[in-house]
Amino acid sequence: MHISTERALKDCVVLDSGVVKQVENAFAELEHGNATVPPILMVPVPEQHGEVDVKTAYIPGLDFFAIKVASGFFNNQELGLPSASGLVLLMSTKTGFPVAVLLDNGYLTQVRTGAAGAVAARYLAPRTTATVGIVGSGTQARFQLRALSLVRNLEQVLVYSPIDEAGVPAYIEEMKSELGVSVARVDDPQELLQRSSVVVSTTPSREPIIRAEWLHPGLHITAMGSDTEEKQELEAQCFARADVCVSDLKTQGFRLGELRAAKAAGVLNENSAVVQLGELVLGKHPGRSSEKQITVCDLTGVGVQDTAIALEAYRRVLERGTITEIAE
Amino acid sequence: MHISTERALKDCVVLDSGVVKQVENAFAELEHGNATVPPILMVPVPEQHGEVDVKTAYIPGLDFFAIKVASGFFNNQELGLPSASGLVLLMSTKTGFPVAVLLDNGYLTQVRTGAAGAVAARYLAPRTTATVGIVGSGTQARFQLRALSLVRNLEQVLVYSPIDEAGVPAYIEEMKSELGVSVARVDDPQELLQRSSVVVSTTPSREPIIRAEWLHPGLHITAMGSDTEEKQELEAQCFARADVCVSDLKTQGFRLGELRAAKAAGVLNENSAVVQLGELVLGKHPGRSSEKQITVCDLTGVGVQDTAIALEAYRRVLERGTITEIAE
Repeated sequence: MHISTERALKDCVVLDSGVVKQVENAFAELEHGNATVPPILMVPVPEQHGEVDVKTAYIPGLDFFAIKVASGFFNNQELGLPSASGLVLLMSTKTGFPVAVLLDNGYLTQVRTGAAGAVAARYLAPRTTATVGIVGSGTQARFQLRALSLVRNLEQVLVYSPIDEAGVPAYIEEMKSELGVSVARVDDPQELLQRSSVVVSTTPSREPIIRAEWLHPGLHITAMGSDTEEKQELEAQCFARADVCVSDLKTQGFRLGELRAAKAAGVLNENSAVVQLGELVLGKHPGRSSEKQITVCDLTGVGVQDTAIALEAYRRVLERGTITEIAE
Repeated sequence: MHISTERALKDCVVLDSGVVKQVENAFAELEHGNATVPPILMVPVPEQHGEVDVKTAYIPGLDFFAIKVASGFFNNQELGLPSASGLVLLMSTKTGFPVAVLLDNGYLTQVRTGAAGAVAARYLAPRTTATVGIVGSGTQARFQLRALSLVRNLEQVLVYSPIDEAGVPAYIEEMKSELGVSVARVDDPQELLQRSSVVVSTTPSREPIIRAEWLHPGLHITAMGSDTEEKQELEAQCFARADVCVSDLKTQGFRLGELRAAKAAGVLNENSAVVQLGELVLGKHPGRSSEKQITVCDLTGVGVQDTAIALEAYRRVLERGTITEIAE
């Protein structure tokens, strides 16, 4: 049994084009109908405002598949602890034996979630994406910006952070220094939308932040915050105004994502023209077909991403030799 | 992060009355409606005749809960490997952090499954259970007999093993020596039923082995083999002949257990008088109320058992000091 620590994983795995490629392939496998993605196993722990989710996906032909355990306990902040934690198990597809425990404390989820943002932007962002708007200033606000910088040439970043205003200065400093772009704060979400050609929302908001009337031709929005039934970042009418609506996995989006709220509002239903991300990867749908279109992508996080990132991470830590073997 | 090996776990945890007590308490919590038991997450791997299941249960008031990963890959036998493997994660109910990985390779599942058999027999077996019939000669055939020996005074054990006849001699030798009882083989399941006052079936059979016409007054049957939609050990009419029908968890039994087959045959449905094991523990139902009754219990394995055994095992390995700490 192999054990890898967060430190060892962070030393090998960053959001780079290799990771994005693996996640993109995983969406292709999902779209081919090859992957088995059981519904998420959810364990609510209401006493701590917490929840533990287990996601998995089996993709035939790969040596392993991942079982990912991800916790979000929002009372942890009072204890001075991060709310997110978790680990990833790698299971042999040949024998069913567990082969590795990746003690990533949620790090690989951050990377693979960023990677899905890069895949979405590759097919949906206008070719010329000079100005990007980021909603939020947390970890995904960072990863989503890194993701965009892999697939578009960015000049200007605007950040609006309704939930964590205090985090904005550090966000600006870090992103400026890391990506060499101009990063500025805006205090009005409407201004953020108007000035940007790509907006990525990364918050756990339970009230829509982005209003449909603010959408303009040539805008792409990726909303990656909603992954439970209570969350919503986009006003439902955003989907009515969009020329192309995309979901990482429609069945899941209609349960847990922005699609759920849009359905509840009567704007979308399961028969609406919602494209899956894998259809873009496979070329079954062209994605953005003109610079003037409005496009919206709802990301909820799919088990195939976890299997993709876990395999890539395991390959890298094995190659680097930074893994611990536990005798059984 | 604590890691415990199968060896360390086996050194501390055997099927004893302490373990049975913990599992019995877990069924009581389940019955009180305190436990959250999400549906089992199942990942079929048809290429290897395999499946990986994830079971969990959160019981408020305990420090941890378990997430158990259990594999059954039936092509492993061709590779000279055991078909069953897996591990158990312990998660903090305070922070959601993973705190321990118990690398038990399925051992704790065997123990907790045995423990449920002991709970069933405590409330359902005739007080005088001189002769016990075991169907099967594998690991659970052993654990179920150990379980019975904890709650009844056994004199004679009969074993009938339709699927693994070759395993019978070793079974007889081991059980004789371990439990000090007489153990004899029978080659006819009808004879096994006729001579026994308790029968436990422990096979992965897909065809009923036990026929309803063989049931006689004063018999208790525990069927623990069926845990998927394809398996069945009892003819459906057994439930029609029984005075008391018990299930570890009815919703699960009707999906995966003997109750499923009985429902498919029109013998039972969700409104039938099926008692849950926890009702017996709580005294809401008396269980066996006369030596002449016929009782049948269908066990599918519930996440609360995994949480109960994992906490007990963790407590014991910590006390013994046989756990490895991995720096994170």
